[in-house]
Amino acid sequence: MDELSLIARLTRRQGKRAVGVVRGIGDDCAILRVPAGHDLLVHTDLTIEDVHFKRRTHGPEAVGAKAVARVLSDFAAMGGTPRWALVSLALPKWADDAVVNAFYDGLLRVSQAHGVSVVGGDLSRARQLVADVVVLGSVRRGQALRRDGAKPGDGIYVSGTLGHAAASRYVAQPEPRLALGAWLRGRGSAAMDLSDGLSSDLHRLARESKLAAELDSSLLPIAKGASLQQALHGGEDYELLFTAPAGLPKRARGVRLTQIGRMVKGPRGRVRLDGTVLQPGGWDPFQR
Amino acid sequence: MDELSLIARLTRRQGKRAVGVVRGIGDDCAILRVPAGHDLLVHTDLTIEDVHFKRRTHGPEAVGAKAVARVLSDFAAMGGTPRWALVSLALPKWADDAVVNAFYDGLLRVSQAHGVSVVGGDLSRARQLVADVVVLGSVRRGQALRRDGAKPGDGIYVSGTLGHAAASRYVAQPEPRLALGAWLRGRGSAAMDLSDGLSSDLHRLARESKLAAELDSSLLPIAKGASLQQALHGGEDYELLFTAPAGLPKRARGVRLTQIGRMVKGPRGRVRLDGTVLQPGGWDPFQR
Repeated sequence: MDELSLIARLTRRQGKRAVGVVRGIGDDCAILRVPAGHDLLVHTDLTIEDVHFKRRTHGPEAVGAKAVARVLSDFAAMGGTPRWALVSLALPKWADDAVVNAFYDGLLRVSQAHGVSVVGGDLSRARQLVADVVVLGSVRRGQALRRDGAKPGDGIYVSGTLGHAAASRYVAQPEPRLALGAWLRGRGSAAMDLSDGLSSDLHRLARESKLAAELDSSLLPIAKGASLQQALHGGEDYELLFTAPAGLPKRARGVRLTQIGRMVKGPRGRVRLDGTVLQPGGWDPFQR
Repeated sequence: MDELSLIARLTRRQGKRAVGVVRGIGDDCAILRVPAGHDLLVHTDLTIEDVHFKRRTHGPEAVGAKAVARVLSDFAAMGGTPRWALVSLALPKWADDAVVNAFYDGLLRVSQAHGVSVVGGDLSRARQLVADVVVLGSVRRGQALRRDGAKPGDGIYVSGTLGHAAASRYVAQPEPRLALGAWLRGRGSAAMDLSDGLSSDLHRLARESKLAAELDSSLLPIAKGASLQQALHGGEDYELLFTAPAGLPKRARGVRLTQIGRMVKGPRGRVRLDGTVLQPGGWDPFQR
């Protein structure tokens, strides 16, 4: 498959012109229009063969779906609206036309379900499959849910359950919590998505908010079949981790919410579980 | 090097807060503010070991510099202002801390020279070095130089010389023609950057403008030491290819401008050189 025919096929498959796209695929840059009164949000994630997925256990449709779902999860964590995507794809010899089409089937299925259109990217060769998916979107000025807004005394919450990705050996498809993220705007004080694992991610949120965090193991919503270790360190759950003053309901936008601890004054970024310091132990490609 | 320490180092090296950055590295998404009355521009390019560079001939500083310069060249071609970058980097075992630092030395040198700040990215492992550099910026609404604006009778122009990259065996560092691109806004009718070679790129511009193109070989500004074939198909010159009504000066913003032909009514995308059809023969990673 050459680059021009892939671009042509992709343009056809996306159907009618997307909102806010002045010029999509076909020029030196995409030209996009951010809604008035909104700030631009942008995030990118690499998805790499034998690092983030294995050919043996992940088909190309699932890889394409996950490559964009991971990034959309970051938009959920900001309370933002994803709008446009760029897809840079480096293909090894085994990735024939059928593989590339299946990858885009998955990617476009998830993108279109969330109103995101692909407006650009790049295509090249590599010895293993490497996808870099960039998503751009927006949020009303000043309304983004950041990591640095937690206050002492705020409750620490998670959506859904913890450890389900690890318990499924990382074949579970992430479901970006976009509706919940939008609901949290104005309710939560800080938020991030659980990609690397609760122990690492809560450490980051606490550090950004210049606070410490206290967790209660008896409150953790551990997924069926998952261990406590998987719930704490397993990563890839793509649930929302957030802080808020007391008084949130048990469910919102169809998703279970559980308070698992609270933010306190203390050493910046320190996380304790039942009073014992919990070391960040989540997923880091440079520590495996 | 772990991801957190790389991010911390990068944040320090960039110094003071950049313009339009509400929140840079450190949250789920970067939060950016596009100037009022401007449209957003975005482009991304992969830079891959053994595809776009070889370790033997390209040091990591040069690779970092080129990885971002290639993308900035696309902003020049739109008449746009680049503002922010995301850098996704997958590192093989040979890329130690010194290599990564040198890569960022080059990338930040070129970025900072053009007012661009790195606001995010991703970091992972791979069997060969893969960098995906995304640049975001803006242009006053409606003023972007697109590929589809050429009119019959417009002159076809190039900046600088052609074939110099091929003649240097692709070790020449591209110089993004940003000042020239800004000067062309309101003067040029269409523009793109010469990344894949004149024969391929002019074909694309003509196709987007629904016109044909006639080139005169005696007018081509062939670089010293380059052959006609290198000037036509060599690629990676990163000069601007643009169309404009007659009457442009011979130089602008310190760069030579040469008229090399003109746009005509005819089969969409057809390029002829001295009356003979010229097949697109530029750089395509899937055709080598």
